[in-house]
Amino acid sequence: MANQGTQHDKQFLAPDVVDDAVVRLAKINGQVQGVSRMIQEGRYCVDVLDQIESVRKALDGVSRQVMRNYLERCVTDAIKSDDPLIYDELMKVLFRHR
Amino acid sequence: MANQGTQHDKQFLAPDVVDDAVVRLAKINGQVQGVSRMIQEGRYCVDVLDQIESVRKALDGVSRQVMRNYLERCVTDAIKSDDPLIYDELMKVLFRHR
Amino acid sequence: MANQGTQHDKQFLAPDVVDDAVVRLAKINGQVQGVSRMIQEGRYCVDVLDQIESVRKALDGVSRQVMRNYLERCVTDAIKSDDPLIYDELMKVLFRHR
Amino acid sequence: MANQGTQHDKQFLAPDVVDDAVVRLAKINGQVQGVSRMIQEGRYCVDVLDQIESVRKALDGVSRQVMRNYLERCVTDAIKSDDPLIYDELMKVLFRHR
Repeated sequence: MANQGTQHDKQFLAPDVVDDAVVRLAKINGQVQGVSRMIQEGRYCVDVLDQIESVRKALDGVSRQVMRNYLERCVTDAIKSDDPLIYDELMKVLFRHR
Repeated sequence: MANQGTQHDKQFLAPDVVDDAVVRLAKINGQVQGVSRMIQEGRYCVDVLDQIESVRKALDGVSRQVMRNYLERCVTDAIKSDDPLIYDELMKVLFRHR
Repeated sequence: MANQGTQHDKQFLAPDVVDDAVVRLAKINGQVQGVSRMIQEGRYCVDVLDQIESVRKALDGVSRQVMRNYLERCVTDAIKSDDPLIYDELMKVLFRHR
Repeated sequence: MANQGTQHDKQFLAPDVVDDAVVRLAKINGQVQGVSRMIQEGRYCVDVLDQIESVRKALDGVSRQVMRNYLERCVTDAIKSDDPLIYDELMKVLFRHR
C-alpha cells in the first residue's frame, strides 16, 4: 500500500462510490443465493454456469468502480507526490488475475 | 441445452456436488458482505480489490465443480448418445468469458 | 494425454483444421512483427497494447478451433471408450488460464 | 490518446523497454512458428493448446512491460499535468480484456 500512511485522514473511496457499491453488492448477494437455489433445485449445469458467470460480471462491475476511484484518488495522489512505490502496487493490482 | 429433454428423470448434479456447492456459496455470501463492510469502513482500495478477487476465486471454485459434473454427466451422456448439439453447447460454455 | 496411446494411427487434427490454423498462425506472425515495428517506431503505448490485444484475440481463434477439434475427436473417442482419465485432462485444459 | 498531442517530441517507450520487447517479440515469432509446425506434424491437441498458452503468456510479458512503461511515463505525465482524459483511457486499457 504505497500511500496509505500519509492519507489516514482522507477517505479513499468517494461517498457516491461507496453507496453505489453497497447497493451492487447487496444485489450480488441475492444472485449468489439464486445460484445456490438453482443448484438445490437440480437445474441444468449450463444454466448454473451461466448464472455464476452473471455473478462474476456483476462483481467485475464493482471492481471497475473501485478501480476508477483508486486511479482518480490514490494513484493520482501518489503520482503527484512522486511516490515511487505506486507503480509496483499498480502493476500488482492490474496483473493479479493472470 | 443439448440433452435436457431426454434426462428429466435424472439428476444433472451429483448429490455431493450439490452439498459442497451450497456450502461454498454460503461462504461466498459471507465474503461479499465482508467486501461491502470494507467499503463502508473506508478501507484502502487495493484491499477492497484484493478481497473482490478472493470472491472471484471462490466463485471459480464452484464453477469448476459444476463444470466437472457437467462433463462427467451431461456431456458424457450426450456424446454417448451421439447428440451432435453438445459441441456447440460446450464451446459456448468454454469460451463465454473471452 | 488420456488417449494418445491408443490412437497412433489416427490423426488428431482434421485436415481442414490444420490448413486453417496454419494460415491463421502465419497471419499472427505478421501481426507480431507489426507490434515489434510499432515499438521500434515509438508509437503510443496504448496503440501498442491494443495491437498486442489483437494478437491475443487472433491466437484465441486458433485455440478455439483446436479446442473444438479436440472435443469432437479426442474427447469424444475417450468418452466412448470409457477412458476415465479424460476428465482430469479436460479440466486441466479448461482451467489452465485461471 | 489523452496526451499524445503534447508529447510529440518525447519518446513514449524507454529505450531499454524497446530493446527488450523487440527481443521478446522475435522469440514469440519463433514460438508461433513452432505451433504451426506442431499442428502440421499432427501433434496431440492438448500439446498444441499448451503451446498456444505459452505464446499467450509470452505476449502477456510484453504487455506487462509496455503497461509499466505506460504508467511510469504517459500516465504519470498526464496526471501531473491534470489531464482529465487519462482516467477514461486507463480504464479502457485495463478492462479491455473482460
